[in-house]
Amino acid sequence: MKADREQALRKLKTVRGQIDGLIKMVEDNRYCIDISNQLMASIAILKNINKDVLDAHLKHCVTEVFDSGDQTDKKQKIDEMIKIIDKLSK
Amino acid sequence: MKADREQALRKLKTVRGQIDGLIKMVEDNRYCIDISNQLMASIAILKNINKDVLDAHLKHCVTEVFDSGDQTDKKQKIDEMIKIIDKLSK
Amino acid sequence: MKADREQALRKLKTVRGQIDGLIKMVEDNRYCIDISNQLMASIAILKNINKDVLDAHLKHCVTEVFDSGDQTDKKQKIDEMIKIIDKLSK
Amino acid sequence: MKADREQALRKLKTVRGQIDGLIKMVEDNRYCIDISNQLMASIAILKNINKDVLDAHLKHCVTEVFDSGDQTDKKQKIDEMIKIIDKLSK
Repeated sequence: MKADREQALRKLKTVRGQIDGLIKMVEDNRYCIDISNQLMASIAILKNINKDVLDAHLKHCVTEVFDSGDQTDKKQKIDEMIKIIDKLSK
Repeated sequence: MKADREQALRKLKTVRGQIDGLIKMVEDNRYCIDISNQLMASIAILKNINKDVLDAHLKHCVTEVFDSGDQTDKKQKIDEMIKIIDKLSK
Repeated sequence: MKADREQALRKLKTVRGQIDGLIKMVEDNRYCIDISNQLMASIAILKNINKDVLDAHLKHCVTEVFDSGDQTDKKQKIDEMIKIIDKLSK
Repeated sequence: MKADREQALRKLKTVRGQIDGLIKMVEDNRYCIDISNQLMASIAILKNINKDVLDAHLKHCVTEVFDSGDQTDKKQKIDEMIKIIDKLSK
């Protein structure tokens, strides 16, 4: 991975703490709206990490492969990005 | 919470396992696209739990409060749902 | 509809102008990224109108029906909102 | 634009018809939920067109520029894709 690893790990550990919190909230039968807000907070952080990972992928991996000139690798990089765009576009 | 708690806990524990996996993937410097796909899988499960929580909230909590007839509680339930809709609409 | 109609019409007419512009952009073979940005601008306005419509629906229609006390109407309002939440949660 | 233009135009004209329909629905004071469903249908088509445009952009424009070897053009293509990914990731 080419994104800032320390930052990605910090954000993932925040989400892990939130998921542990969510498990406790459900076990404690907490109010639905509080659970929903916490779920949406975790979704927002995961989307933000995904954005960071894809930005770094474009800046580094895709650029490297295109500079290397290998046609099979190039095609694979483009196909991968198309699949990602398709998922993000839903 | 009024949603199926066992099902919500099972899904949350799946996501916790995925987040642990993601932390390891980042530490092991795994390929960006694999990390991105795993992130989007976790986001999809969290969205699905959120949908279940909100559906059950509407079916149970909102209906109860509206049947009880307390005007302050009713206004609060509507205001909460509006804030949720605003977040989901982005 | 219970949302501010003048505001909704103004925004819809803006989107109609953008769609006409997009048709022209495609006919003129304009640059993909410019077309994509214009598409995302229209999507953002439509989401914003949808938010306004649903907020007003909750504030007015749902509240009225719940105050009226008709059980069939109440159930229908909740079922409708659940279907909307399911679509927004994707 | 490198996407299938006839198909994009056909979909855009469908959305234009839907927007005209929405303007009439609002003027006729139609039911909020019907308006919301129609709005979400138009949003779904616009997202689908955006996906087609971006897929074709990656397959054609990005590949061409990377084959041409111009470093300034390459950097611009990557920067543009990063901005698109950032918008799609919200």
